[in-house]
Amino acid sequence: MRKSWSGSRVDLHIDLDASQGRRSALESALRDAIRQGRLAAGTLLPSTRGLATELGLSRGTVTAAYDQLAEEGYLTSRPGSGTTVADIPPETEASPSASPIPAGPRHDLRPGLPDVSAFPARAWLAATRRVVAGSRSVMLGAGDPQGRIELRTAVADYLGRTRGVVTTPDRIVITSGYYQGLSLLSDVLVRSGARTVAVEDPSHNVFRAVVQRTGLAVRPMPVDADGARVDALTHEVDAVLLTPSHQYPTGVPLHPSRRQAVSAWARTTGGLVIEDDYDGEYRYDRQPVGALQGIAPDRTVYCGTASKTLGPALRLAWMALPPELVKPVVAAKQLADLYTESLSQLVLADLITSHAYDRHVRASRLRYRRRRELLLARAAGVPGLTVRGVPAGLHTLVTLSADWPAEDEVRSFCARHGLALRGLSELHIDAHGRPAGLLIGFAAPPEHAYRPALDALFDTLLTARSFRGA
Amino acid sequence: MRKSWSGSRVDLHIDLDASQGRRSALESALRDAIRQGRLAAGTLLPSTRGLATELGLSRGTVTAAYDQLAEEGYLTSRPGSGTTVADIPPETEASPSASPIPAGPRHDLRPGLPDVSAFPARAWLAATRRVVAGSRSVMLGAGDPQGRIELRTAVADYLGRTRGVVTTPDRIVITSGYYQGLSLLSDVLVRSGARTVAVEDPSHNVFRAVVQRTGLAVRPMPVDADGARVDALTHEVDAVLLTPSHQYPTGVPLHPSRRQAVSAWARTTGGLVIEDDYDGEYRYDRQPVGALQGIAPDRTVYCGTASKTLGPALRLAWMALPPELVKPVVAAKQLADLYTESLSQLVLADLITSHAYDRHVRASRLRYRRRRELLLARAAGVPGLTVRGVPAGLHTLVTLSADWPAEDEVRSFCARHGLALRGLSELHIDAHGRPAGLLIGFAAPPEHAYRPALDALFDTLLTARSFRGA
Repeated sequence: MRKSWSGSRVDLHIDLDASQGRRSALESALRDAIRQGRLAAGTLLPSTRGLATELGLSRGTVTAAYDQLAEEGYLTSRPGSGTTVADIPPETEASPSASPIPAGPRHDLRPGLPDVSAFPARAWLAATRRVVAGSRSVMLGAGDPQGRIELRTAVADYLGRTRGVVTTPDRIVITSGYYQGLSLLSDVLVRSGARTVAVEDPSHNVFRAVVQRTGLAVRPMPVDADGARVDALTHEVDAVLLTPSHQYPTGVPLHPSRRQAVSAWARTTGGLVIEDDYDGEYRYDRQPVGALQGIAPDRTVYCGTASKTLGPALRLAWMALPPELVKPVVAAKQLADLYTESLSQLVLADLITSHAYDRHVRASRLRYRRRRELLLARAAGVPGLTVRGVPAGLHTLVTLSADWPAEDEVRSFCARHGLALRGLSELHIDAHGRPAGLLIGFAAPPEHAYRPALDALFDTLLTARSFRGA
Repeated sequence: MRKSWSGSRVDLHIDLDASQGRRSALESALRDAIRQGRLAAGTLLPSTRGLATELGLSRGTVTAAYDQLAEEGYLTSRPGSGTTVADIPPETEASPSASPIPAGPRHDLRPGLPDVSAFPARAWLAATRRVVAGSRSVMLGAGDPQGRIELRTAVADYLGRTRGVVTTPDRIVITSGYYQGLSLLSDVLVRSGARTVAVEDPSHNVFRAVVQRTGLAVRPMPVDADGARVDALTHEVDAVLLTPSHQYPTGVPLHPSRRQAVSAWARTTGGLVIEDDYDGEYRYDRQPVGALQGIAPDRTVYCGTASKTLGPALRLAWMALPPELVKPVVAAKQLADLYTESLSQLVLADLITSHAYDRHVRASRLRYRRRRELLLARAAGVPGLTVRGVPAGLHTLVTLSADWPAEDEVRSFCARHGLALRGLSELHIDAHGRPAGLLIGFAAPPEHAYRPALDALFDTLLTARSFRGA
């Protein structure tokens, strides 16, 4: 059916694509010709009868195609004066096609990422099957800005059972990742008159930025071997952002006396504690320290996430809130994006309720524990490297003695050798006089790629060290 | 293993829960006793040796439990002075348990909702299986703020093929629903200096509110039988929000001459067209009118969604943007929530690429077409009801003649009879002098529930009408 015509009044060749229907092929051909500027604005088209004869189409097909393009604004039909091409700007240069997915680093030792190759695919699929087989009107109808009640119930139970969190489903809010949760919470704090949030120094720069973007000032609390120096908490501080179980990035837990001091500060001043329990599932030498929230549930927002257990791309996180914050936080969530996608909320609820989630976390914990031990054994052979923090989480901080090259140089040397890791200095608010260090994530690579990654890391570090003073 | 003790120095009974390990049972019991105020702040606990003897536990178990609770901040241990209960506020009254999921309306005739009971569960599961079997590091690692390239590629192809949209994958941005997309776009417009957005009157009140919340002023364009009166577009208008294929809520398409006028306005003034193609998949009497974006691709943001085809709870929508808007919109998306959940993006990309999505849309179109015809046949039997708009979409507007009771009364009478539908007046910016009307969605009920819903609707309407002048 490949045809072409040279209109009696316009000199134009049109190929009719045989893979489409006749009418649709004619429409596409005319549309393309107008867009590409081959049919200029104002051009009078052949009569429907004339064009039908020329192309061997029925007149009805041509009329329908003209009508369609007139409806869409490509053509203008005036009774008595025929059909002309409307004034459409010609197509701009085709933009370069989308760039291919950038290849990841050869060795992914970034902190905070779990081994997603160990994603419990079978359990996830089985749970998806159960969810999809359930009531679809429940599953796919308009959602709940607070989060699906099924997931809130499962999470409240899970947090009580595994992290000593004191909460109920009506105090849980589900967000599209911790990042969104912290952002909503900061908005609510600002609107309630808060001005100052105390943050750990060092801490995650991205989350400090989230807090600051809402207009809140951050007050740094230096971190020592007992965690954040919470004596910085005064009446002027409205909220404190803490990683009490495993300080990010130094890896130390908050000392019991400081936990009590934070709780006392919150009670006395009405200040709010934001507990970022980003990797509280992973402690390797003992039972994890329970959540700080447990000793001040009415003044603490406990924040947890599935990003470190299943993968960040699921965008599933939760907050256990003091009662009076639930309503404003849910309102902020609704304003931001109405509600979080429901299907994976229901799947995660099923995984938690069926204990498949616990099994996955336990299995991961055993794997990561071995990985950390391997890392420490290798680090012990490198002079001037000191491993910091307790056996926990998905990363280890190693500080570099003064005789190492500068942290930036070590990092960019690693990057050039295909190693992705983080530096300590970018996490400091005030890096002056602080030790240089590297954050080495030991969870991200698939199991088979971990030892090669360690080999590459320590070969590269030993080479980098040999440059000192060079 | 259910045991209790009455401490030598404190009078306290503790039940050890036999379903847990000994140490964990002791910890839970002590934690609960402290939270419930049964062990008051400052209370000196028995020595580990004494308590171990009393409970028949090993001393190590008791020591470990005390240490754990001290770490968590419940207990204070000072060498030489024993272990005391820390100053924890007692548990507050348990909040009422979460309310059960509210039952939906008996007959769901809300506009804009598809029949989610027809969700293509088998195709979705098969696609999920394929995605999960693929590279998990790709699937679950950190995502792309612009949206997964797989989905952007599939959507760009789909929109070109079915809606005449002129775009490429690098101009598509995936958002968590159209609501979020419009919100991000409004932010970007405000930051680029825009002040005024023209909106249709009537139009969706929620989306007007999204635009206004960013500080933009809205300028109403009255809607007549040819769609929005676009002569309201002047140099002072920075952007226009339009539903050209099927005006919401009146159901008329934008007249071809007005499409061209909008395109000319955009070209002349540099104004931006935001095309909300919320239900462009559904036209029942002819081929759908192609997207307005096709005649002004460099000045139009085309917005589409999976909410009307698969279900709103998936929170998947897309925008095809003019090139210069891609970067700021992606930046706004990243600031809002980093990126949209990846798994369902990949599943939807698979459904579109395998044409399972097209098949689902075609099957839905046939079903909804029949439903609309049934609705029209029934409406013809009711005096003073006029069906408006073209055969398209998921709803029909019926206006009420002056001899009907007030719109509010009719609606609340319907609500009392378990019928959920919308009123026209709440969608007007200026409802003065405008006809009363009802928006009747015909897609939401499952197939078996549709006829009973129509029966209930028309019985109720006839009864309501009989109240006139009562």
